[in-house]
Amino acid sequence: MSNWRDNLRSIEPYVPGEQPDFSDMVKLNTNENPYPPSPKVRQVLKEFNSDTLKLYPDPSSHLLADAIAKHYGIGTNQVFTGVGSDDVLAIAFMTFFNSEKPILFPDITYSFYDVWAKLFDIPYKRPELDADFNIKAEDYYCDNGGIVIANPNAPTGISQSEEFLKDIIEHNRDVVVIIDEAYIDFCGNSALNLIQCYDNVLIVQTYSKSRSLAGMRIGYAMGNAELIKAMDDVRFSFNSYPMTRLSVEIGKAAIEDTDYYKETIKKIIETREWTKKELKRLGFTFGNSDTNFIFATHSCVNASYIFGKLKEKHIFVRYFNSPRIDNYLRISIGTQEEMKYFIDELEKILSK
Amino acid sequence: MSNWRDNLRSIEPYVPGEQPDFSDMVKLNTNENPYPPSPKVRQVLKEFNSDTLKLYPDPSSHLLADAIAKHYGIGTNQVFTGVGSDDVLAIAFMTFFNSEKPILFPDITYSFYDVWAKLFDIPYKRPELDADFNIKAEDYYCDNGGIVIANPNAPTGISQSEEFLKDIIEHNRDVVVIIDEAYIDFCGNSALNLIQCYDNVLIVQTYSKSRSLAGMRIGYAMGNAELIKAMDDVRFSFNSYPMTRLSVEIGKAAIEDTDYYKETIKKIIETREWTKKELKRLGFTFGNSDTNFIFATHSCVNASYIFGKLKEKHIFVRYFNSPRIDNYLRISIGTQEEMKYFIDELEKILSK
Repeated sequence: MSNWRDNLRSIEPYVPGEQPDFSDMVKLNTNENPYPPSPKVRQVLKEFNSDTLKLYPDPSSHLLADAIAKHYGIGTNQVFTGVGSDDVLAIAFMTFFNSEKPILFPDITYSFYDVWAKLFDIPYKRPELDADFNIKAEDYYCDNGGIVIANPNAPTGISQSEEFLKDIIEHNRDVVVIIDEAYIDFCGNSALNLIQCYDNVLIVQTYSKSRSLAGMRIGYAMGNAELIKAMDDVRFSFNSYPMTRLSVEIGKAAIEDTDYYKETIKKIIETREWTKKELKRLGFTFGNSDTNFIFATHSCVNASYIFGKLKEKHIFVRYFNSPRIDNYLRISIGTQEEMKYFIDELEKILSK
Repeated sequence: MSNWRDNLRSIEPYVPGEQPDFSDMVKLNTNENPYPPSPKVRQVLKEFNSDTLKLYPDPSSHLLADAIAKHYGIGTNQVFTGVGSDDVLAIAFMTFFNSEKPILFPDITYSFYDVWAKLFDIPYKRPELDADFNIKAEDYYCDNGGIVIANPNAPTGISQSEEFLKDIIEHNRDVVVIIDEAYIDFCGNSALNLIQCYDNVLIVQTYSKSRSLAGMRIGYAMGNAELIKAMDDVRFSFNSYPMTRLSVEIGKAAIEDTDYYKETIKKIIETREWTKKELKRLGFTFGNSDTNFIFATHSCVNASYIFGKLKEKHIFVRYFNSPRIDNYLRISIGTQEEMKYFIDELEKILSK
């Protein structure tokens, strides 16, 4: 047997959320947007000159970074773009977390953080959320190599105030603090303005949720120009042309269509609030979700049982078999029609 | 001054080839294909349902891997896809080169290999090519942590025979041997069949050159299923949805259009052979280019001088200010018309 296996990077493979493909399915398991992307995206595809694909893209995706910068009223040199926010976060971990001290993120949070820490040999500690799944600020006052906070947090859906984040940042001016705002557009209280006061804060956002473009893989980070330059240096040393020419054009068109985006967000929030009431009626409890999903547990019926029963009906929600959350379901918000169907079927399952 | 800078990954940033954008330019500097992608690509764009972009792509890009597998007559589980061959190679370096021993690649070769080695802290050694820019097989008989050979080599354009590669592989059964075939379609002697006999050989190819799709960022690796699985594990731990939905559809359509591909390759090879004759006539010497570029030096006029003069005319070729090759120009093969114009202007520069 050859010894080349000795040199393999040993890693427990990350298992991404299921991507079932049934024509009759109700897909509420990966927090996608139930509405199509902006009509401007369709127009880009229609008008795009495919002959230009023979040429490499602009390495810095300047057109896209510029459109994002304009949207948020910041400088283009304060924007980093990548192949979804996972790519952006992976590059940020590589760039900023090179200390011997452990980085900190909650015990219950986005399941990719510890995967990246393991992949890049970054030591880490995971302070426990309190019983109501809130972050305890004082857990982040200790000496550390960096901090990652998803706000709102996933899969809990709970968000912290800007004051709360500021307090953590004030205690951690010597490390980079990443605030992962994948779901921020569903509550609207972005901490973006903190990047103007704190040179060590990086805000990460994505097109996959609020912009209905999970399939185009566009994420971005915003921070002071020095942070962005450091990420660019690592990026260009990994892959100097990360974004397709189409991603750049589509990303630009989507972020410019603010009206469509607002309309979509409004519909999702309305459906979320309706779903909350219905779930309460059916005996579920949950924290105050500020996202496009609800993380709920039932007072007497087991989450994994409900998960399985819904699956039989081709209704897909997310179930994590992990400590402290193994009796919860994470339910993405679909269209009003989908959620009605979901609640009806859920009611049938619970009444059996 | 905050100390977060102490934890930054210190890296000398890689500088990608210039991407000038003049309407009158002749772009012969990044080895792109001068012909547009297959008409089937245009059709995909025209027919693509943009509403599906709201959903994440299939993590394994199965449709694309399957089309590539069919094209080469191998199993889908023998194919890994990524965001250009740079992404594929970066993942391969991370996956396979985790030995204390140095990996080996030539002193003159693709300029990204040492960048990845530095980025991932992989020790490396760079045996010298001989005076004619050929690889010396015996340099690769020593104990090492892995081998990377670009075949044909870049920027030299020179290729080695399958027998030659086999000899190196036979001497290195205990490490992974990567054969980077970015330019193989311009000579046609792929070492792909070696993956059936050697479980430690990985062949890497790209859509950026022969398929005219540099702007879509599609690369792939082929090897035994165990190598591919190991790369997938690392990939999914970095970014579980690397390929856009459009990349998958476009990549599938492009690889299925063999007629168009053959026609394009034929035209480029004809123009390359014509350009060789003309360059000889003008006093250039070069090795036997098997790629879509020619790496040439002039008997009496300095390469950097010619480079600058061509640039003034908006004719872009590549010049590397590196030891042993700083009197060479790497000239990508454009259309016959572009190369005629290039030769005419070159003749004027040389006659001054």
